[in-house]
This record gives sequence, structure tokens and C-alpha cells, in this order.
Amino acid sequence: MFSFRAALVLVCLSFSVKAQERLYQYVDPMIGSEGLGRVFIGPSCPFGMIKPSPDCTSGPNSGWLPSPVPVTGFGQVHVSGTGGGPKYGNILIMPYSSPAPDKSSLREHETATLGYYSVDLKKDGIKAEITTAEKVSFYRFTYQQQKSLQIDAGFFLGEQPVPDAREAQQFVGSEIEVVSDTEVRGYSRIRGGWNNGPAYTVYFDAVFDQPVASVNTWKGKEVYAGKRVQFDSGEKTGALLTFKGGGDSLKVKVGISFISSLKAKENIAAEIPGWSFEKVVDEVRAKWEHLFERVVIDSSSTIDQKKLFYTALYHTMLMPVDRTGENPLWNDRPYYDDFYAIWDTYRSSNPLITLISPAREVEIVNALLNIYKRDGFMPDARSGNANGRTQGGSNAEVLIADAFVKGLKGIDYSVGLEAMLQDANVPPGGNEEKEGRGGLTDYNKLGYVSYSFARSGNRTLDYAYDDYCIATVAKGLNKTAVYDRFIKQSGNWKNLWRDDYTDHGAKGFIMPKDAAGKWLDTIPYGTAKNQHPTFVYGPLSREFPWYVCHWCAFFYEATSWEYSLSIPHEVPALIEKSGGPDAFRRRLDTLFTRRFYNVANEPSFLTPCLYHWIGRPDLSSERIREIISGNYNTSHFGLPGNDDSGAMSSWLAFHMMGLYPNAGQSYYLLNAPLLKSVTLHQENGKDFIIIAKDLSAQNRFVKSVTLNGRKLDQAWIEHADIVKGGELIFEMDVKPSAWGTTVLPPKN
Amino acid sequence: MFSFRAALVLVCLSFSVKAQERLYQYVDPMIGSEGLGRVFIGPSCPFGMIKPSPDCTSGPNSGWLPSPVPVTGFGQVHVSGTGGGPKYGNILIMPYSSPAPDKSSLREHETATLGYYSVDLKKDGIKAEITTAEKVSFYRFTYQQQKSLQIDAGFFLGEQPVPDAREAQQFVGSEIEVVSDTEVRGYSRIRGGWNNGPAYTVYFDAVFDQPVASVNTWKGKEVYAGKRVQFDSGEKTGALLTFKGGGDSLKVKVGISFISSLKAKENIAAEIPGWSFEKVVDEVRAKWEHLFERVVIDSSSTIDQKKLFYTALYHTMLMPVDRTGENPLWNDRPYYDDFYAIWDTYRSSNPLITLISPAREVEIVNALLNIYKRDGFMPDARSGNANGRTQGGSNAEVLIADAFVKGLKGIDYSVGLEAMLQDANVPPGGNEEKEGRGGLTDYNKLGYVSYSFARSGNRTLDYAYDDYCIATVAKGLNKTAVYDRFIKQSGNWKNLWRDDYTDHGAKGFIMPKDAAGKWLDTIPYGTAKNQHPTFVYGPLSREFPWYVCHWCAFFYEATSWEYSLSIPHEVPALIEKSGGPDAFRRRLDTLFTRRFYNVANEPSFLTPCLYHWIGRPDLSSERIREIISGNYNTSHFGLPGNDDSGAMSSWLAFHMMGLYPNAGQSYYLLNAPLLKSVTLHQENGKDFIIIAKDLSAQNRFVKSVTLNGRKLDQAWIEHADIVKGGELIFEMDVKPSAWGTTVLPPKN
Repeated sequence: MFSFRAALVLVCLSFSVKAQERLYQYVDPMIGSEGLGRVFIGPSCPFGMIKPSPDCTSGPNSGWLPSPVPVTGFGQVHVSGTGGGPKYGNILIMPYSSPAPDKSSLREHETATLGYYSVDLKKDGIKAEITTAEKVSFYRFTYQQQKSLQIDAGFFLGEQPVPDAREAQQFVGSEIEVVSDTEVRGYSRIRGGWNNGPAYTVYFDAVFDQPVASVNTWKGKEVYAGKRVQFDSGEKTGALLTFKGGGDSLKVKVGISFISSLKAKENIAAEIPGWSFEKVVDEVRAKWEHLFERVVIDSSSTIDQKKLFYTALYHTMLMPVDRTGENPLWNDRPYYDDFYAIWDTYRSSNPLITLISPAREVEIVNALLNIYKRDGFMPDARSGNANGRTQGGSNAEVLIADAFVKGLKGIDYSVGLEAMLQDANVPPGGNEEKEGRGGLTDYNKLGYVSYSFARSGNRTLDYAYDDYCIATVAKGLNKTAVYDRFIKQSGNWKNLWRDDYTDHGAKGFIMPKDAAGKWLDTIPYGTAKNQHPTFVYGPLSREFPWYVCHWCAFFYEATSWEYSLSIPHEVPALIEKSGGPDAFRRRLDTLFTRRFYNVANEPSFLTPCLYHWIGRPDLSSERIREIISGNYNTSHFGLPGNDDSGAMSSWLAFHMMGLYPNAGQSYYLLNAPLLKSVTLHQENGKDFIIIAKDLSAQNRFVKSVTLNGRKLDQAWIEHADIVKGGELIFEMDVKPSAWGTTVLPPKN
Repeated sequence: MFSFRAALVLVCLSFSVKAQERLYQYVDPMIGSEGLGRVFIGPSCPFGMIKPSPDCTSGPNSGWLPSPVPVTGFGQVHVSGTGGGPKYGNILIMPYSSPAPDKSSLREHETATLGYYSVDLKKDGIKAEITTAEKVSFYRFTYQQQKSLQIDAGFFLGEQPVPDAREAQQFVGSEIEVVSDTEVRGYSRIRGGWNNGPAYTVYFDAVFDQPVASVNTWKGKEVYAGKRVQFDSGEKTGALLTFKGGGDSLKVKVGISFISSLKAKENIAAEIPGWSFEKVVDEVRAKWEHLFERVVIDSSSTIDQKKLFYTALYHTMLMPVDRTGENPLWNDRPYYDDFYAIWDTYRSSNPLITLISPAREVEIVNALLNIYKRDGFMPDARSGNANGRTQGGSNAEVLIADAFVKGLKGIDYSVGLEAMLQDANVPPGGNEEKEGRGGLTDYNKLGYVSYSFARSGNRTLDYAYDDYCIATVAKGLNKTAVYDRFIKQSGNWKNLWRDDYTDHGAKGFIMPKDAAGKWLDTIPYGTAKNQHPTFVYGPLSREFPWYVCHWCAFFYEATSWEYSLSIPHEVPALIEKSGGPDAFRRRLDTLFTRRFYNVANEPSFLTPCLYHWIGRPDLSSERIREIISGNYNTSHFGLPGNDDSGAMSSWLAFHMMGLYPNAGQSYYLLNAPLLKSVTLHQENGKDFIIIAKDLSAQNRFVKSVTLNGRKLDQAWIEHADIVKGGELIFEMDVKPSAWGTTVLPPKN
């Protein structure tokens, strides 16, 4: 018996040794934290519900801002990489020693590593450290003097002096109750914010490792000495707690729940029963390590490469968040929230999750189907338990098709088809910001969305691709009539393709059209009766006049130069419409050299790879290298745009591996890898290894490729090739080769 | 100082003596409790948020059912007079003495008076008494043996074995916490029900006048001895409490809140700080009495007349419920919920509230505008903090127009117009059950709702009248363009008027039409590909084949015979289209004598008065008397249909006074009163007195009418006539007179 156990220990040790590679150490949560990236910098579990972070004023989307902006406190809920109005920032706690708490404190020695954050708050010389479990934050505050703690149940991000500003969160109510000398409960109820959603409630339970010595609470502007309860009367509430002694540490666990504060208390009991801070740090790191170990890159990679790669994986798995068992609206499982937005994530974030953890992607897709079942529509975006701020199409369709073509098990695809058809058939009416397809009546009647609807350009294009995804699933389920209708509709992008329009030598652009079929060179805005102002629209128009709403543009966050190339299911037709391969190459070259391409915007994510379809994967690879070297790095400014729930990051991670998915379709385009090797230890137990032989700064071109020893002329592989395990070997060379020049990627 | 206070006491006494008439004693909450009436029978404040009542199984809408059905317990939230799926029934408490609680108990000596309910539970010989404040129920249980109490946080009305049955409530979560020996908190979270709404939460705080001696709680099917907390894990929870001693009484206050259980606790402190049961009974009665005193009927009226009249007023003021300060979604004030539905209440319930308490109607209208502001649309129906189960049009328009033409102050009518235009301009898309105007795209394009939409008949008619209401307000606000559009649209009913259709001698009916303009004698149902069943539609078709959904009929709950006469803004045009006055009289006679008229359905509420427009108010009065004597009485079966939030009752009350409003318009039609006098002590301090001189069984016809001494040839008066105070005297006679035969009521 003893020897058997010794053997077991040995096995565990060897596993543990392997884990000692500590891939998580390459994650730098600060990459992309400044500039446009806006990533969340605090500790978080993969897809973790709680995301504690310093909030630096109530302004920024992620909570955090660089020094010298002071720290206002530590809120429990945040999102990562987002644009638009802020959301969350609830249940702010702040240690202090002065007689009264400051509204903020300057900081130094700020440190953020995976699963751990620490900072010194200068005013009172307090060291604050944070780690986290799935639904519980763990704080260790080390004081030099008196140990006081403020718990602010009224704080939230994005508070504005103007009531009801668009996309700004609005206070609804809050409550606080000191239930014992070591426990405080309460909640924060907030409406609005980015998705203009209805009220959500973040309940909390905070427990301390030592008893409270004195309690004050506040309601509105008044502090009540000794009062332990402030019920919700529609005002902001909070507590000021002072503990015995001083100069030592105070540990605080803050459990949250979207259900109740007793559930928050239970979450603490379930996740962090003890008081070891280090144990919790180890646990959150182990969770990430378990995921990172599935994608092991060549050990000879540079530190920067390792940092870029594993931080990219990390960013991709921060959201959506797993709120299974935490939904106040229904209790179907699983439940995920903070889809932010699928328009941003379907192209690369979700495919990367599928590669690392198909089981997780199955959960995410099933969460979408539960949302459809209960709310009537799948979200394009969702936060605070409510669908909303649809950006483009009903792009959940792509996630379902992507899961379907990649053979993910455990999804009822007939329900998936039903949910997709809901999007395609039922107009959302006045709720088009919230759900479904705005302008659907036009689209289904005219075959395009007319300019009378906002974002009619990208809506038409998104719907056409979403329809392609419906057709894909319908075909697979043998629903011929559905397939016939939607494969036809998937060509609707052509209805806004203006053949005779040329710009900078490129021919044909997606352009605005009215319901009567008239092209609009100048487009109207404003609704005044006596004035009819117009705006000249061209393929490079990105921003409309300042008084035209951001959402009302022809293309959401993009130009026609960008979006006219975003036809992921009919690239050959696009090439033909652009005047053939040569013209198309010139068009792409113009796009990149004239900087019409926008790396920071998701509709352009596939564009560098379009050279594949004219037999020039070498050019795709060259563009990708240029983009990465010019836009990505390991600094705080290392992401070129809003990370958008890992969109920017996952795009990078795929290209470092030499793979790029065309989401909703079953293949990956192959590019020259940036890493010498990548080993995918898949969830199914099978390894898929990508090797770039002789890769160097000079040897950056693909000479030839073999898949499991067989020569591969084509510059793409199937998802199934990966799933069954194997070896993909790139021979690298100093110059381009004939590889990928003759067998072009799938038509669709 | 002393003498001054003595004088004050005298004033109070004299007021108190006057109050001693005790009009509330004529209220019999059991009228309409059996059969179709479905009224709530427990104690309630006017528009009171809490409505405690015995729940007799989980089936009935009002909770109560007649013996021998046993009592399951006492739930805290109910609605009154409703059809469709049940809603609420939350937080069930049940006293018991046996070792374990029964699931139900047989009863005897059931008593329900205004503000008070009592019953003897046979099994354990426990007497249960209930009274109530606005948000707090007060129970007194008198035991013969051991004092035990079950608190069931998982109970709700309408639970069905089939998950997700339409309009059936569904369990989401519940929680229970015994916070001290005299206090239990928790909540019940339920979704669905009548309006298929999202989850709502009823929080509660229950306090006892004596300490608990032993505590058990349950979760799901398991009972946990001594466990004081069951957090929400998506299962049903509850508590079993036993108190010391036996054979005496236990008092329980149950505060509820839609915000939090601490707010529920605060509601107890604010409303019922003490333990005097009698004091609370007195207070709820005083609140009602204060309202009843505004409408004092002749003291010589029969007991039955008094009972019918004051019970009708009572029923009219049970709902909607005042939830100001109790909205979990936003905190704009005022807030009312349980509009059930405005399609039912706009015709008579709301006009009666306007007459008794215009300040209350102002609050109700402002609540609708707040709902518009926050939810995007005013409700036609709302419950559990969510719009939904729109029955007909967007009839909140009528409430706004009614308030406007009656000069109610304190409403921003420009916001009102904006809210109405939202209904008229923004299609609700897939949310047509929830909000706005289903089929609006058809209506705005074709001028009618085509048969491809459910309820296209009454939708077209309702929208046309709603448009008339928009035109009314637009005109008053000098919005000429808006007026022009909507006064034109108000004639849209004509687009479904089929001139050549005759039935039982009547010419012209509202009939189904398709989008191409083709009349449908047979109408299609079902969507099977290979079958195209049809159904012959005639003006008497009420029920469609059983497999066609209730909501999908051409007219909601009515026939074309009924609805074709429901054109409240263009009666003269209707008469002309029906072939002139003689033909119209024959048509009305046929309707009543052939029993095509349905007293239990709101679209027919104005119909008996239509004789006014052919100069025969005597015939209107005759029909009204027939209807009342044949359908209304003081028994449990005394209401002819679902009371629908006081709709049936208010119709009766108006006709007993000799007045009938045409809601949305400024006048009241005059009919032969059923009461010798009615004195309206108006909120503005001015009295308006209605006297029916020489009224008797024989003298039931109006000979002549004077208003403030001036002879009135017309059979209608203006709301302004009432507001300024005065005297309306009917001279009654044995036969009809020329009164009302020449000056016809307003065209519109």
C-alpha cells in the first residue's frame, strides 16, 4: 500500500514539475492597459464572474487608469477591453487610517501579475493586495497605523452629472447591513451603462479576519454613527468600519452574487473557506496554468514572444463571464453574461476558445441558446443580464455555425437553427438596439437595409454573412428549404455593391442606397422640417459630422474601404467584382500602403489573409508581420485598439501560431508562423504540433508544408485535421515559394 | 390654549360623527368572488400593494376558491378580477398545531368584510384573522393547541406540471433566513404568469409578537432541523416555526417589498409599528371611508343598492397598485404596477377614479409616463414590473386623452403626446405581446391591420380610437401636423368596414381583410405546408377552433356583432354606415334581443348608450336597466364577467348614478339614474349633486333635466359642469319624453 502511494506521489510530482514551467508567469496584465487597449488589469479566474480592480475615478471602462490618477477604491466587477459607456464598478472598498477616508489616494509600487495585484496607497501608507476566486475577491491590507475600511455600496463607473446620459450607468438603489462584527452585507443596484440595460443588482457579503471595533454607516450625504443598517431608500449607502489595533494586516473576502447576499456569503464558503491569501493566489494561477498548458510554444521563443502569446490567451479568456447559478431571471444552465460584443469576438476570440477548450465554447453557445429560450433572442451583446448594444448583425449565428462546422458536441443544433431563424424572421421593432436585426423588414423585402436605417451598410453585410451561417447549419441538418432561402440571401451584400464607384484605383464599393434603389452620394442627416442637410459620403468616410450619432453611421466604426472587403464567405466573388486577381491585389496593396486598413477594427481582421485567394499567401504573411510589428508589443500600449473581450489579442495569438480561422467555416488559413513550434494538447487528449523549421528573421517565407508527413499544396487546413491530432510542418526559407499559389482556399 | 384645543376636538368629533355613517360597511368583498367575477376577497388598502388572501390550491387567479376547496395558506400578493394565467400568490404562511403542517385545511365560518378577513381552519381548530396596511399584512392566529407557523417562500399561483406552459408562473428562486427569534426574512422570485413577464421578486420580512421556540427550515424536499438559513440555490425554501405555549394567539406582521427584505422590514416599522390588530383594521377602513365619502348616495337607497354601489367603488380602487418607492428598476416617482389591462379599464374604471380622486388618476397617468420614459413604451398591461399581455391597442392613449380633456393638472402632456407617438410610430417587432402596436407596419401602410396579424380586427379599431385620442391631445397642444395625421387615421376603422355584408338584418360589419385588400369569408389558420385549413368567419364567430390560440382570433374576446358597434368617436358615421337611424335602431334591438350583446366584455360597454345618438336615450336607459337587473346582484355570483380590475363594477356604478363616460372624450351621457340622489364631494371642495326626482319602479323614465336650474335638452353634460359644482336634477316619469331626442350627443 505504501509503495503504491509512493508511486502516486511520484506521478503527481512529475506532473507538478511539468507545471513548474509556469506559463502564467509570462502573462502581463498591464499589456494593453493604456492607450486604446482598455484591458482589465486586476486578478480574475478564466471567465471569472468577479473582477476586482482599483477604480481610478469613476471614468474608465476597465476601472484602472495610470498614475498620477489616484485610486478611488477597489470595485468588484469590471469588463475588459471595452469601448462605449462604462459598466459595473460595483461595491467599492477602500482601506484608510486617517480619521475619515479620502475620496482617493495616490499610489506607488503598483504590481499586477496573473491572479495578483498590489499597490501602496501613499496617503496613509497602506499596502493593498488582491487575489480572487471565481466569485469572491480576497484583499490583504497592511496598515502602518489604524485599520479602517470603507465599503461603498453606492459607487459605480460612469456616473455623470447629466441624468440619463446615453450609455451612462444610473443609480437605482443600494443597501448595507453590518450583520455581525465580522460580516457586512448589501447590494448595489444600477441601470443603464454601455448596453442601456435595465437595472442589475450586485449583492455582496464581506467578511473580515478580525472583529470590527466601531461602525458608522451613511445614507446619501449623512453619516450615522453606530447605525448598522441602511435599508434601500433609493439613496447611496455605505459603511465605515474601524478594527482594533493597528500597524498590522486586515484580510477581507468579498463574495458577490447576482442573486442575493446570502448566495454571496455561500460563494465565500464554497470558494475560499480559509484565510490563506497565498493559497488563493496559487489556485487562480493553477486554473490559468491548466489552460495555458494546452498551448505550449517553443521554449526557445523570446520572452517578449512568450509574453505576447500567453497574455493574448489570457485576454481572450477573461470574458464572457460564467454566471451559471447566478442568474436572477431564470435558472437554466449554463449561463454566461458580458458578451461584449459578439460582433467583436466571433472572428477570433471564440475560435481561439474553441481551440483551447471546446467544452467551454459549448457552454458559451448553450448559454446563448438559453438566452434565446428565455429572452426571445440571442444577444449580439449582453451585460448586466440584458441583451443590448447590438453593433452589427445577429452574429451569434456565426458562433453556432462555427461550433457546428467544427463538430462541437453537446449543443442542440436544431434549437440553434430555431434561434438563428428568430433573428432572421422576427423584426425587433423598437428594440433593435437590444436584439435581433434592425432594418430586417427592409432586408427581407429589398435584399438590403436601406439608408433610412442606421448602420445600413454593415447591417446588410453582417446579415448576409449571418445568413450564410444559417444556410450552413440548415444544410447540415438537411433543412433544404431553409438552406435554399438563406444561401440565396447570403449573396445580399451584392445589392449594396456599387459597381461603377471607383476610389484610389479600386472599383466597386459597398455604398448607401435608399429604399427606392437610388445610390446616395450625399446622405441626409437630421430630421428638421425646414432644413435638409446632407453629407458627402465616400469610401473613406469614417466619422460623420460630430452631431450625427456614432451609431447612425453607414458603417459601424469603419469605412467602406474596410467593409467592402469583409465578405468572408464569397471572397472569389468579391475578387471578381473588384476586377479580377490583379485589380484585387492592387486594391489590397492600396489598402495597406495608404493606411486605409485599420488593424484596430474587427471587420478588417480577415483582410490581410485575402491575398490567399489570389494565390499569394506570402503576401498575407508579409502584411501580418508588418501589422504585428507595427502595432503589438509588450508595453502598456501594446494593443492597437480596444481589446474587445480579447478580440485584438486572439487575432495576434492565431497569427503567432501560423493559423487564422474564418469563423463560421471549418478551415484555418495557414501563414508563416512567428513561433518555432506550438504544441496543442487538446481537450480530447490528442496533440497537434505546428513546427516552423528553420524559422529565423531571414527565413520568414514558407517554402513547403507537410501535414502528417504529406505535402500540402494548399495554404489551409481543416479543423478536423487538428482535432484528430498530428503534425503540421512548415519549411521556412528566405523567399516565397509556389506553396499556396495554385490550390486556393475554399470558395465558401 | 385649552379652549382652542377643545374646539379642535369638537371639529374632529363632528367629522368623526359624519364618518360614523360607515359607508365601508356596505362593501361586500365576496360580491363577484364566484363564477366569472374572480375578485380579490382579502383585505386591501385603496390601490394597496399588499393583498393578503387565502390561497385555495395554486389554481385560481385571485387565490380564493369557495368551500369545500381547502385553504392552502395565506399568500401576500394577489390581483383582482383577472382572466388568463394566474400571477403572484407569493410568501404563503400557514398556522398549524399538528406535529407537521398540512398541505391544506378545510374551513368554516369564513368572513370577509372591508379590511378584515377571518376563517376557522378545521383540522387544528385555528382561527385566522387578517387585516392590512399598504405594504404590510397583519395576521392574528388563535390556536387551541400548539402554536406553529409555516412560511413558504416557494409557493406561487399557477404552478403547472408542464414546464414553461404559456402564462404559467415559473419558479426561479427563493430564500429564507430566521434572523432572530422574532423575525424571518426572505424572498420569492418568480417569472412568467399572465403577462409572460421576466422574473419579479417579492421580498418579505415577517415579525412575531413572541419569540420562536424551535426552528426548522427546508430546501427542496428536505427539512433541516435547527438550520436557520437557506440561501437561494434555485430551490424552494421555507421555515417551520414553533412558538412557546399554546391555546392562545400569535400575531404576525408580514411586510413585503419589491426592493429588498430590509425595505420590507422598514415598511413594517413605517406602517404598523405596534401590535394592535384593531387599530390596523380601523386604519384601512378609514382610508376607504375617506374615498367613499366623496360619493354619497341617497340614504333611502336599499341595502342592496348601497352594497352594489360601494362594492363597485371598492372593486374599482383595488388596482392598479401604488408601488411608488418599490420599483427595483428605476426610482422615478410615482410608480404603479398591475395594469390589468388598460384595454379593460380605460372605459369606466379610470374615468370613475378620475371622478372620485383626480389626484390619484394623475398619479396613475404619471406612472404610465415614467414607464414610457424608462421602458420605452407605456403599457397596455403590466404586472410584476414588466409590460405585457397587450390585448388590444395601445390604450394608454385613451387615459392620457381622458385626463387632458378633463383638465387634470400635474401631467406633462407634451411628454404624454411623445409617449403616444411612440406607440403610433415605433413597431414593437417581436415584442408585440409586450408593448406598442402589433401589426403597426400594416396599419401605417394599409390603414388597417391585415389578417396576417392576430387580433387584426380589434387592433384596427383600437388603433383608430387611440389615434383619435392622439389627435385630441395634439389639437390641444397646437400640434397641427400631428392632429391632421391622426384625425385622419382615426377613420381607419372604415377600412375594415365591409359595407356589403349583412347578417340578421344588419348591414355592414368589421370583417377580416388580407394585405392585398381582399375580404376573407373564410380565414386561414395553421401553418402546415401540406394543409391549408380554413374556418368560415361570420359576425357571430367568437371562438375559433380549439386549436387556434385565444389571442389569434380576429377580435379579442368578442364577435364582429359586438366590435362593429365599438366606434366611440364616430357614432354618427357608424349610424350612417349601418343604413341610417332606423336601421341602426333595428341593429341595436337585434343585438340585445338576440343576445348578441355581451355584458361581460368591455368592447360592448358603451353600446347600450348608442341609442342616444338616434335621439332615444330612453331606450339606452331601458337596456341598461335590463342588463343590470339580469346580470348584477349582491351574491357571490354578482358580476357577469371577470371584474378586470373593476371594469364590470365601475360600469355599474356609473349607470347607477345616471352618468356614463365616453372615455377619452369630455362628456358623460345621461341616463335614468337608479339612485334617488348622489352627492359628489369633489377633491376640489365643490359638490355636484345628482337628483332623480320622483324616481320609483314606475317612474323610471326621464321627463326633463335641469342643470343648475337651467333646462337641459341634451342627454349629456360636460366633465367641466361637474368640476365646477352644481346640481343636476332629473324629473322622472312613467313614460319617455322628448328629452334628448333632438340635441344629439357630440359627434366626437
